[in-house]
Amino acid sequence: MSTLFTTPRTKKLRPAIQAYLDEHILQNELEWLKQPFGELESMLRTHKQAMQKLGVWNLYHSAEHGGPGLSLTEVAQVGETLGQTVFGLFLCNAQAPDAGNLELLLKYANADLQERFVAPMLAGEMRSCFGMTEPDLAGSNPVRMHTTAVQEGDNYIINGRKWFTTGADGARLCIVMAITNPEAEKPHHRASMIVVPTDTEGFCRERNISIMGHDGSGWLSHSEVTFTNVRVPISNRLGGEGQGFLLAQERLGPGRIHHCMRWIGMAERSFQMMVNRAAGRELSDGIMLGDKQMVQSWIAESRAEIDASRLLVLHTAHAIETQGAKAARDQISIIKFTVAGMLNRVVDRAIQVHGGLGVTDDTILSFLYREERAARIYDGTDETHKASLAKRILRKARH
Amino acid sequence: MSTLFTTPRTKKLRPAIQAYLDEHILQNELEWLKQPFGELESMLRTHKQAMQKLGVWNLYHSAEHGGPGLSLTEVAQVGETLGQTVFGLFLCNAQAPDAGNLELLLKYANADLQERFVAPMLAGEMRSCFGMTEPDLAGSNPVRMHTTAVQEGDNYIINGRKWFTTGADGARLCIVMAITNPEAEKPHHRASMIVVPTDTEGFCRERNISIMGHDGSGWLSHSEVTFTNVRVPISNRLGGEGQGFLLAQERLGPGRIHHCMRWIGMAERSFQMMVNRAAGRELSDGIMLGDKQMVQSWIAESRAEIDASRLLVLHTAHAIETQGAKAARDQISIIKFTVAGMLNRVVDRAIQVHGGLGVTDDTILSFLYREERAARIYDGTDETHKASLAKRILRKARH
Amino acid sequence: MSTLFTTPRTKKLRPAIQAYLDEHILQNELEWLKQPFGELESMLRTHKQAMQKLGVWNLYHSAEHGGPGLSLTEVAQVGETLGQTVFGLFLCNAQAPDAGNLELLLKYANADLQERFVAPMLAGEMRSCFGMTEPDLAGSNPVRMHTTAVQEGDNYIINGRKWFTTGADGARLCIVMAITNPEAEKPHHRASMIVVPTDTEGFCRERNISIMGHDGSGWLSHSEVTFTNVRVPISNRLGGEGQGFLLAQERLGPGRIHHCMRWIGMAERSFQMMVNRAAGRELSDGIMLGDKQMVQSWIAESRAEIDASRLLVLHTAHAIETQGAKAARDQISIIKFTVAGMLNRVVDRAIQVHGGLGVTDDTILSFLYREERAARIYDGTDETHKASLAKRILRKARH
Amino acid sequence: MSTLFTTPRTKKLRPAIQAYLDEHILQNELEWLKQPFGELESMLRTHKQAMQKLGVWNLYHSAEHGGPGLSLTEVAQVGETLGQTVFGLFLCNAQAPDAGNLELLLKYANADLQERFVAPMLAGEMRSCFGMTEPDLAGSNPVRMHTTAVQEGDNYIINGRKWFTTGADGARLCIVMAITNPEAEKPHHRASMIVVPTDTEGFCRERNISIMGHDGSGWLSHSEVTFTNVRVPISNRLGGEGQGFLLAQERLGPGRIHHCMRWIGMAERSFQMMVNRAAGRELSDGIMLGDKQMVQSWIAESRAEIDASRLLVLHTAHAIETQGAKAARDQISIIKFTVAGMLNRVVDRAIQVHGGLGVTDDTILSFLYREERAARIYDGTDETHKASLAKRILRKARH
Repeated sequence: MSTLFTTPRTKKLRPAIQAYLDEHILQNELEWLKQPFGELESMLRTHKQAMQKLGVWNLYHSAEHGGPGLSLTEVAQVGETLGQTVFGLFLCNAQAPDAGNLELLLKYANADLQERFVAPMLAGEMRSCFGMTEPDLAGSNPVRMHTTAVQEGDNYIINGRKWFTTGADGARLCIVMAITNPEAEKPHHRASMIVVPTDTEGFCRERNISIMGHDGSGWLSHSEVTFTNVRVPISNRLGGEGQGFLLAQERLGPGRIHHCMRWIGMAERSFQMMVNRAAGRELSDGIMLGDKQMVQSWIAESRAEIDASRLLVLHTAHAIETQGAKAARDQISIIKFTVAGMLNRVVDRAIQVHGGLGVTDDTILSFLYREERAARIYDGTDETHKASLAKRILRKARH
Repeated sequence: MSTLFTTPRTKKLRPAIQAYLDEHILQNELEWLKQPFGELESMLRTHKQAMQKLGVWNLYHSAEHGGPGLSLTEVAQVGETLGQTVFGLFLCNAQAPDAGNLELLLKYANADLQERFVAPMLAGEMRSCFGMTEPDLAGSNPVRMHTTAVQEGDNYIINGRKWFTTGADGARLCIVMAITNPEAEKPHHRASMIVVPTDTEGFCRERNISIMGHDGSGWLSHSEVTFTNVRVPISNRLGGEGQGFLLAQERLGPGRIHHCMRWIGMAERSFQMMVNRAAGRELSDGIMLGDKQMVQSWIAESRAEIDASRLLVLHTAHAIETQGAKAARDQISIIKFTVAGMLNRVVDRAIQVHGGLGVTDDTILSFLYREERAARIYDGTDETHKASLAKRILRKARH
Repeated sequence: MSTLFTTPRTKKLRPAIQAYLDEHILQNELEWLKQPFGELESMLRTHKQAMQKLGVWNLYHSAEHGGPGLSLTEVAQVGETLGQTVFGLFLCNAQAPDAGNLELLLKYANADLQERFVAPMLAGEMRSCFGMTEPDLAGSNPVRMHTTAVQEGDNYIINGRKWFTTGADGARLCIVMAITNPEAEKPHHRASMIVVPTDTEGFCRERNISIMGHDGSGWLSHSEVTFTNVRVPISNRLGGEGQGFLLAQERLGPGRIHHCMRWIGMAERSFQMMVNRAAGRELSDGIMLGDKQMVQSWIAESRAEIDASRLLVLHTAHAIETQGAKAARDQISIIKFTVAGMLNRVVDRAIQVHGGLGVTDDTILSFLYREERAARIYDGTDETHKASLAKRILRKARH
Repeated sequence: MSTLFTTPRTKKLRPAIQAYLDEHILQNELEWLKQPFGELESMLRTHKQAMQKLGVWNLYHSAEHGGPGLSLTEVAQVGETLGQTVFGLFLCNAQAPDAGNLELLLKYANADLQERFVAPMLAGEMRSCFGMTEPDLAGSNPVRMHTTAVQEGDNYIINGRKWFTTGADGARLCIVMAITNPEAEKPHHRASMIVVPTDTEGFCRERNISIMGHDGSGWLSHSEVTFTNVRVPISNRLGGEGQGFLLAQERLGPGRIHHCMRWIGMAERSFQMMVNRAAGRELSDGIMLGDKQMVQSWIAESRAEIDASRLLVLHTAHAIETQGAKAARDQISIIKFTVAGMLNRVVDRAIQVHGGLGVTDDTILSFLYREERAARIYDGTDETHKASLAKRILRKARH
């Protein structure tokens, strides 16, 4: 749309990436999606190298850490282009949860962990996972977390069960959130983040959880994992004792920009498919599907909703850059539920315009419909974000 | 809810079926869904026998044809109970498309076909499919159908391609819609329905179409099939020449009641799961998920929408019984789009209330979300039904 | 639509009423609406007599009390026909709040009140009002009601302020809800209903509240009234001490059926206007407004929503008749929020189809849009009903 | 929200205007709204002078024409602040239709008209109206316009009927759209704009049209006017023959920015009222209305929708500034339907949160609900804009 947030770098990067995706990725995507993701990883290396050449490897990182050193508003724009395909961010070593984990590790991990894990992760040779959500808990409820890490000498002994541990299948380390300070007055001060190499005794990936008919594997897995008397050095803790939720917040702030831009990329692609279908499908002599006003209203509303979402996200990225993530809390909540809802609606309309074809796995729409239903749930449900936002607004009004 | 449409038969049948489903089906359903449907068929025979004992075998048929001889409003109520599980109607030999095919065959098939196919189908020993939709066509557009049946001596030579041919995998016959009278003035008078045994030379099931991540098989397959110089006797035609669409309408009328009641069964089950989750999930000490008003509003709206849908459907069934399907056209359109939309919304809310669990395949909700997205598309999209209904209303207003 | 709930009486009454409304009321309605309602009352007497002749005077009452003795499902159907115009129920002496007040008075008023007020009210010669809502309170919150009635000898001394006291302008008596038992443990047992003739010293109608640009008067007024040391005999209390809320519930149950059917009448009329406009408005040569699919979708959705609403209401009336109002509580909540929302949507769509004309006062639509926005608020907001319904459902699920 | 579009001028002007509105306007607004608008005009002069002092007189104009010379994005921001009250733009001599008329007159009027009308209009001493819409036409349909202007010597003889002629009551001139070239091939080339002083013989303001219960007068009137053999010099035509629609487009482009920002001002004010009510209203001991999640969800959704709307509008203003109105056509359509719909929803929610009070005329909400229902209709209905937008998108996709 506009050039308001365009920079020389985004102007150069976006068309180059688009051209590469068009030629090498988008046309193969459906075929790849039929294979276990774990098996694709080696094949995808060529394309990773291409992204390195394009200059978007380690997309979120500074030059110092092997990244392009983009600003957040630049990342958001490039991320939208990459987000058109589920493979995009992975090819730039910017997939969740590794991107977020890397930020934590770079900032808080001890020298040993830096050496063993951070360097290979930056090189894309190692993957990690993040153990936060528990099966019996609503969201990441700190009051009721069951996983514990008890000090014993220089070690933590960790016990517990996590699920939705994204990318656990094949990961070499897991950052786990565990209760270290059960006696802390504020529930938010009870947990810490601890690095657990996945080959540690007692760490077990129980299963990959099948999600919406997709029994993930490799980096696109969501696993259930257990910790049974897992023993790691206390120095594996990231940040101070009881700072787990503080760090999680830090990790989630920009992470939501990343998700949102990816979703806009998907929405834009679904939109284009909807438009192409409506423009090209003849119903009867000379009457095209796109001549039907019900279809037109979906196209118009989708265009408006995508544009609004993009502006909200870029504006939020700008606010984070200029005022910090904390000052932009309200906006971060707003984009989380606005963009997730928008994506779900746009994909749903695109499917409807495709008719029977839309529900088959012959187009990417079915995958987006299934995979991204969770957008309204993870990293805080829409409802959680709405309630927090409203409470903050109401609190201000009382003063 | 009410006893308005209850009869002694529904009063007896529904709790008996419910008890059987609770004990034998619902608890195994998730396990079964992981297996290819084709492989389940023999195992399910025991349960089919149970349904025979309960007296709901050949659910839609009269006693003469081995059915319970229920009225349409009774069928609708029993069908809701069975519809709670994807296996319900299958166990009663009342799955689509066999039920609709049987009606056509019983009425129009020649003696030979009756003997070879109808008897075993009524016994549940043989399955059939229905070849209507074509890949390059919007819906069942009669103007642009490409499949042809050309007379040659006493035979039709059929050529063409169909997809969304439900249950083709394992079917023994296919009722195919083909253009027999290309010169007929009205496009609706150009096609005929013809019975093609699936072992006829030139009939080919090309593939089962993967739908929403589910690569169906057996009776839960939707296949792409081709006809290459398929030769069948002219006497295999059902009804007169060019009457294909007329018969299709006949077939679809009560068929929509069947779909709608099944959807209400699914919605009711999803609703119950949503309520149970909200009632049983503790967020923090003493605060349950169901205490949250956003959840309460979904429960209330779902309850209202399900009840409204059920009344509309029962009322439509009553109208068909008393005034005929043609007089009830408007109501049939209304229930098609109202109930399909309601189901999609209720399942979506139930998933949201389940949080992360809702998108996993650990509950039935994900299956319903994926499998029933097509409810707003098949047998006429919502939009087609809305437009036809509105046009009929407008036409009346002009006179 | 259907004949499911039709009886010989509704079959005879509805067309007769419709004919009368068509000839005498609907065409004059816009003109009348421009005048203060108080001034219309004498002119409307002729039409009241016509309704008496048609046999629908005192619509809700038994023959014993001068009414037609209809069942609730019959009342609902006749009420829909009358509800097409704001004058309909008034002409049958069935307007709120008199209808509800009469039921209370007939059942609970002492002989003196019966004689002085009930007889002339049944004759349509006297009107009444109901003082429940207070300006500083959310709804009819019993915990925080400020109006008190203190015993002094044989009298109550009443002090307080009420608003939304419908019909107070010109009313001869007011049934007021006041706290008589502040010490009662349960808030719901603290208030009583007391009859106050409006000429009692200390009763003051402060103003008619202007609502949505309409500064009502006469029976279509909503007034603010004050009670300053108003003294009435204790025997003016209706029912036992502290039973005010119990009686209010009793009064509201069938009252909601009355509102809902009136709303369906209004929706049906708005629908017909929308259809006629769409059918008759030419956009360009031969292209009618109704040819546009966006308009078609509104027509189809409105038809479906009105039909569903009617079935829900009739079914609820049937449930009240057969099982009592208490057993039908859930259904009463459902129709309250479903029908109010439906009415608001249908009127809004009808306005949009009328374009500029729709917002003028040249059609009835603007009046319905303004006057009936309150439908989602009074007698319990949509949200209150949704929350109560959901809580009852959740409570059952816990057991 | 952000400072992205803030400039030194908006930073200075907005708080100054806000302070003035708070002190002098907002608190009196409800009282003023009860009076005929025509009678308020002289009283409002003081406040107009205040706006002159604040430097926002002739808000849209350059310094040369006595305005502040703001850029369009600056105007949009200042316009939001002023838009909080219906009196805001009027006090800055920036009310519709005068603002748009002035632009046309400044650019196209002959010297005589400039002298007689433009100078006093810029001084706020004279008002004008715009005669476009006709009673029997859908929108401003050029094919079917009935008003004609026939040349006779040096004059046009104008005949026809217009309605929704905003501000005609008290206007000194009317710019009328009339068919001058009925034979032109393209319907869009048939009409011209002609200036008619309202004291010309044959010009008649028939009535002020009552809209949503508000029988406007003065500058807040929408009148029906007739032209009967109205004779004006040909030189009163603005622009070339047959350029009427071209000029109308020119007039509407920035006009839509003006409307949209005014709507955002209203939405923001309604939002604040909703929040204040929710924060301040106690339901029972310690439980505030704002503690209810249904209210919270409205607050959160409204905040998100207002923010998105503002960004879309500012971004569109920016696009018009940098690329011209034609290049920004899609965005102009998007903001028209997005912001109008948003305003209607936010006001509706604010009313619901206010309960009974919300439908009374004791707050500004009822006025906004009624007055701004037309936002979805005038200057092109939502549906017209959606259809045009979609068609342009589809056209591009076909190439």
